[in-house]
Amino acid sequence: MAPPLTLHALEDFPHVKPGDDLARQIADCLAANSLRLQPGDIVACAQKIVSKAEARYARLADLIPGAEAGEWARRTGKDPRLVQITLDQANYVLRYRPNLLVVETKLGMVMANAGVDQSNIDGAGEQVLLLPEDPDRSAEALAAGLEQISGMRPAVLITDSVGRAWRIGTAGIAIGAAGIRCVNDIRGEADMMGRELKVSIVGHGDQLASAACVAMGEGAEGTPVVLIRGLPPEAEPLPAAALVRPAEDDMFR
Amino acid sequence: MAPPLTLHALEDFPHVKPGDDLARQIADCLAANSLRLQPGDIVACAQKIVSKAEARYARLADLIPGAEAGEWARRTGKDPRLVQITLDQANYVLRYRPNLLVVETKLGMVMANAGVDQSNIDGAGEQVLLLPEDPDRSAEALAAGLEQISGMRPAVLITDSVGRAWRIGTAGIAIGAAGIRCVNDIRGEADMMGRELKVSIVGHGDQLASAACVAMGEGAEGTPVVLIRGLPPEAEPLPAAALVRPAEDDMFR
Repeated sequence: MAPPLTLHALEDFPHVKPGDDLARQIADCLAANSLRLQPGDIVACAQKIVSKAEARYARLADLIPGAEAGEWARRTGKDPRLVQITLDQANYVLRYRPNLLVVETKLGMVMANAGVDQSNIDGAGEQVLLLPEDPDRSAEALAAGLEQISGMRPAVLITDSVGRAWRIGTAGIAIGAAGIRCVNDIRGEADMMGRELKVSIVGHGDQLASAACVAMGEGAEGTPVVLIRGLPPEAEPLPAAALVRPAEDDMFR
Repeated sequence: MAPPLTLHALEDFPHVKPGDDLARQIADCLAANSLRLQPGDIVACAQKIVSKAEARYARLADLIPGAEAGEWARRTGKDPRLVQITLDQANYVLRYRPNLLVVETKLGMVMANAGVDQSNIDGAGEQVLLLPEDPDRSAEALAAGLEQISGMRPAVLITDSVGRAWRIGTAGIAIGAAGIRCVNDIRGEADMMGRELKVSIVGHGDQLASAACVAMGEGAEGTPVVLIRGLPPEAEPLPAAALVRPAEDDMFR
């Protein structure tokens, strides 16, 4: 039988602080979990620890909300300073509701409150955590760092959990990736009956991220790094940016 | 270290025909793959084999498209008979494009062409494959069938791959489930800093389905059953129907 796909959630991952060498922390934690990188391995990291290591904090006390933020704060009942941070990360607002602004981020992702995170943060109430500025670049840097430390370059996936149209509950998506074919175009491959396949473009990076989120667990458990093993190495990687549907091609934006 | 989450794609799953005993086929294939059900195991099945076993075929030759189907066929360029089948499965049309109708299905799921499938089907061009009529019930029946055969009742997940708003590529979702808490409400659980979590409702069933789809692979490979192992058994299951966001609660419908 072919070996199974396995997802190891690393135990006892350290608390990440601004400026930490995340690649070193991952390499050390892999070793502490008796795991050694192998060809084809994917290291999946929760966005939160990447943002923390990159010091992507914003202090609420430093923010002076503008008029537009004041208006959206009035409509949503949100803190005007949080609205200002959200607008700073956004191209425009798609929808709003009490306590919720759904925006298109500067990177083109549709997200509640622009992915700005208030949970699991030191000094909560005083500061919030933004997404990495360029998550695909962050993933490449982590892959390079892990290669330098271990001699083996893994693929790297940076995951986030987002709300969705039509469905209840969040699901993991890939916001950054290195060495992974995040969008897999299988048009033209024949199916088992020899016909050409119709449904054809697979959001592979997002599916992997959802899988990693299952292994990470949710909430208080604190397992933000997962080693995914058992997939063949990717010949032609595509970054997570390839998963972002352009607005002009989107029927629901 | 805690055992990893593992996903075994069963090799050599037989070709499924209408009326086949799918539980028996799965039990036999598990044995042929040297796998024995254990407490906490989840059997994930692609929708296609469930629909085939349930004989959810529609013959195009039997269909006489009505006026509404003719109108949508004109707008989309689709075969009026395929449009009629789509409308028969749908509450209403949300969006359309050349060769595409996005509808809300009778079960409330937003899907291209109502999930009607033309690939991997015998006598293609002559008949299409519909979704199971009640996929949660199908999952319960499979779980009961597997319990009867093996003495061990697994959880069962029925997966489909669907297009999404905002993102490129399909992702696996749960359309049917038994013994799985498809929607996991973690509101009120404290995070690592002791604050109450804000993002709080996880689409666990969909994340599991995406994970299963990674293990199944895509296209011609023919591995429609995946054994997922390593999660604790669910104390309070919720069916896949719980993942369907009601239209009145949906900002994007």
